[in-house]
Amino acid sequence: MITDAFDTGPTGTFRTLCRTYPDDTVFKGTDGFRSLWGPIFYRGRANGSARLLAIGQDPAQTEAVTRRCLSGQAGRRVQGFVEKLGYTKSYLMINAFLYGIFNQSMALPHLNDPDVLAYRNAWLEAAFAPGKIETVVTFGTPAFNAWTAFTATPVGASVSATVSFHKALHPTADKPGGPITRQELLENWNVALQSLHPTVQHPDVATPLVPYGADFTAAELPEIPSRDLPMGLQPWMRNTDFWASMSATPGNQRANISIEVP
Amino acid sequence: MITDAFDTGPTGTFRTLCRTYPDDTVFKGTDGFRSLWGPIFYRGRANGSARLLAIGQDPAQTEAVTRRCLSGQAGRRVQGFVEKLGYTKSYLMINAFLYGIFNQSMALPHLNDPDVLAYRNAWLEAAFAPGKIETVVTFGTPAFNAWTAFTATPVGASVSATVSFHKALHPTADKPGGPITRQELLENWNVALQSLHPTVQHPDVATPLVPYGADFTAAELPEIPSRDLPMGLQPWMRNTDFWASMSATPGNQRANISIEVP
Repeated sequence: MITDAFDTGPTGTFRTLCRTYPDDTVFKGTDGFRSLWGPIFYRGRANGSARLLAIGQDPAQTEAVTRRCLSGQAGRRVQGFVEKLGYTKSYLMINAFLYGIFNQSMALPHLNDPDVLAYRNAWLEAAFAPGKIETVVTFGTPAFNAWTAFTATPVGASVSATVSFHKALHPTADKPGGPITRQELLENWNVALQSLHPTVQHPDVATPLVPYGADFTAAELPEIPSRDLPMGLQPWMRNTDFWASMSATPGNQRANISIEVP
Repeated sequence: MITDAFDTGPTGTFRTLCRTYPDDTVFKGTDGFRSLWGPIFYRGRANGSARLLAIGQDPAQTEAVTRRCLSGQAGRRVQGFVEKLGYTKSYLMINAFLYGIFNQSMALPHLNDPDVLAYRNAWLEAAFAPGKIETVVTFGTPAFNAWTAFTATPVGASVSATVSFHKALHPTADKPGGPITRQELLENWNVALQSLHPTVQHPDVATPLVPYGADFTAAELPEIPSRDLPMGLQPWMRNTDFWASMSATPGNQRANISIEVP
């Protein structure tokens, strides 16, 4: 028998936000969004119990299958990060963009378009409404800018004074051939951990801080917990990467997705 | 804005059954099962409100993506059928087999293996426990045999006396080159409708019986309701067919799935 907890889904305001959301007149294909694949709302506790809020950028092809954000390569890196803070369960992760992006230079300028901003801020307000979030971390510049835009609102200004916040690099900022090395990414994340770890008040598991070394260890790339994913998804979807790929015309919102069991 | 109801998930015993289920030591790859794609539990109301119970055979590639059974071509045909009875919402659909099949001659003999039978009967007991099911229809021989095995149990014998039951042909029994024509399939389904329709006590929408003609009309292939699928799935996944295909080695449990937006 398999006995796997699964995400029983969003409740309350979170549920409403998963039922009523902006469409492709807001996230336009002509603006670089892959809206045909549908929105990816969150990963983690969309039920008011989250203590940590993480903000990422946008969902990719893996997330179009799991229907939860930050569940591919970037997601497993983020999972290791939040577990180093002691949050093994009480986190909520959302993205700055509800839909995937196929062209960043076209899409990123729309970060704070009125309808994009309003819907994202509704998520952030819902996240803070229960009064439990104590730690906020953004991964990458669009996520940081999304947080900044929220803190410019009355609610955002109010809650931002009550939390520990840190801006971290995007989980895959160390792209091959890019300006940021793996070592630089991990040093950046170590600074974030050193800033946030002492302020954690309600960890799921109290844990001494162990910083990253020169590279991610296997233990620092934990599987995505089954409790974060829909019922019935199998272990290979949680503990391996790159099983979903864009199979044709990847620079286009109509790109196919091919799923290969590792 | 999109405002789409979605399936908020199984409750009570149904939730337990989606958390604890047989693995690939029961549904073996060497017996013709595609267990790597994971179990597909149900479609419809797994919350005790169902009035109609439909039993199908096994999930295919479309269902591996939507994670709900009977949501591809066969599913849209079944949706039209249950709506002709007036059940637009209050139905529960399960399959005789929890996992997909890649080789029927290998897999079908395992229909009533002890662990396959026990888990399926637990679903059937859960379906009947609220005391609301009034109509049962099986689609295809394995589904009928699954029902027969259930009615041989004390609980099954007891509840079967309280419902209207009909055995119908598999929704895609009219395979090209096979022994059953589209016309014969629809005549078979008309007999089922004529048997069941007069006994419906609690339809969602009371509706006069309109039998099938020579072929399915567009109205007889309705979209899969968004309330039956996970949050965020897009209309093309509900109102078109064949967007998911086995992209390689289809006669093998490791077959890839390719998803193409229509």
